[in-house]
Amino acid sequence: MEAWVDGQPASAIGVVNRGLAYGDGLFETIRVRATRLSLLERHLERLAHGCARLGLPFDEPVLRAEVRGYASELGDGVLKLIVTRGDSARGYAGDPAAPARRILQGSPLPEYPAQRQTEGIALFPCRTRLAEQPLLAGLKHLNRLEQVLARAEWQGAEFAEGLMCDSSGRLIEGVFSNLFMVCDGRLVTPGLTRCGVAGTLRAELIAQAATEGEPVVIEDLEPSRLASASEVFMCNSVYGIWPVRRYAQLTWPVGPRTRKLQQMACELLDI
Amino acid sequence: MEAWVDGQPASAIGVVNRGLAYGDGLFETIRVRATRLSLLERHLERLAHGCARLGLPFDEPVLRAEVRGYASELGDGVLKLIVTRGDSARGYAGDPAAPARRILQGSPLPEYPAQRQTEGIALFPCRTRLAEQPLLAGLKHLNRLEQVLARAEWQGAEFAEGLMCDSSGRLIEGVFSNLFMVCDGRLVTPGLTRCGVAGTLRAELIAQAATEGEPVVIEDLEPSRLASASEVFMCNSVYGIWPVRRYAQLTWPVGPRTRKLQQMACELLDI
Repeated sequence: MEAWVDGQPASAIGVVNRGLAYGDGLFETIRVRATRLSLLERHLERLAHGCARLGLPFDEPVLRAEVRGYASELGDGVLKLIVTRGDSARGYAGDPAAPARRILQGSPLPEYPAQRQTEGIALFPCRTRLAEQPLLAGLKHLNRLEQVLARAEWQGAEFAEGLMCDSSGRLIEGVFSNLFMVCDGRLVTPGLTRCGVAGTLRAELIAQAATEGEPVVIEDLEPSRLASASEVFMCNSVYGIWPVRRYAQLTWPVGPRTRKLQQMACELLDI
Repeated sequence: MEAWVDGQPASAIGVVNRGLAYGDGLFETIRVRATRLSLLERHLERLAHGCARLGLPFDEPVLRAEVRGYASELGDGVLKLIVTRGDSARGYAGDPAAPARRILQGSPLPEYPAQRQTEGIALFPCRTRLAEQPLLAGLKHLNRLEQVLARAEWQGAEFAEGLMCDSSGRLIEGVFSNLFMVCDGRLVTPGLTRCGVAGTLRAELIAQAATEGEPVVIEDLEPSRLASASEVFMCNSVYGIWPVRRYAQLTWPVGPRTRKLQQMACELLDI
């Protein structure tokens, strides 16, 4: 399906767009099934938060109307929404009067092998570290060279995802997913105050666990914690939950907690 | 002057370009006076180095011919060259078969107030820190949100540049220039192995000092070193050298070393 730029069908943007020049913007990738946008409120919430941090305008009614309109034409697929600071002359100073630009793109739902859900995956140990930048941590911004470098570290189908640590060696996330584990019966996920992308499915899992009186433990996690985990899984809002079976010398079974959350994720995402 | 995309006049790029999606590319801004490209070899050298690090193809003859052709039409101005990994479907994995894209843009030479050269400038103390990422340090890549945030910290004409430190508090660079100082009679500049952009004029100053038998000292610099500097200046390949007169509570005169290097920079850049 053709892209929309600022609400109009278009397949190109001006070369003066600050999204190209500086990665000066944010994006969301939203799963669409039968025109329904999964986790839409979580995506809008993260985008609003990102816009506030970057000093970008956030016009919620317009964004909401546009993604709904685009999804109704897309039907099934992944809707990618990019918001940039718009155009400007050369130089890092943005033009406060320049309107932000909205870009919508649609692509087919990815056809991941079904056994990633059923049997689980192996994680590649990425050497690329995530730099620690609290001002940008958690945001899904357009500065993604670290993910590009990490994803280029492996080819082939043996590894479905890669695991990334920060500069200090703490566990943070996958290249395109978040990390959870079960330790001593409790659900644990890395804190993302220094780097990482705060995924929308991650946010949903955290919120639901809290309402069930079993809050997720969010903390700094050393790689050694993996050895004591009874279950490990990755999640994102496009594929749901993939159990992790193997990382380096470590192996895990697909545990009951993972299966239960996986079921919930499938319902949330119409998988 | 209209931009060129892959050698053809064009003002837009596809929304699927990875430069927009991930900042997956590099750029150079080259000063052009009377069609002459200043420091062209240094710019191509840095770009080649960046392409090697990011795994991007670097077609030197094509790039050289295109920037020369564009400069001959631009006459006077700033030529901005962007190289991106080209287009790809959604996902961080690049398509190795996709050709890189070249984007050339021209803008007028900036009209900075002349007293920045003659009388010097005040530096704004930026709160935004540069994250430490050795894999990207030195490159002029398209992930520039830190510079955007730093540049948004001040408005108005009191400060011509801002000074940025890394996460550990070391002095690194300006928002759009490099930092030099004179300490105990020696020229000193911060090492850029963890973060920062290795400027082409910086490289030229370092090379020329080495040939004169007075090599620049490149090292980690704590902010306290500024207090013992006898001269401080900022440099880039568009404006040349601006003496720094004031930073926080510190002040400096415009010293003889700065004046001498400023003269050399003016010749290099046809200022």
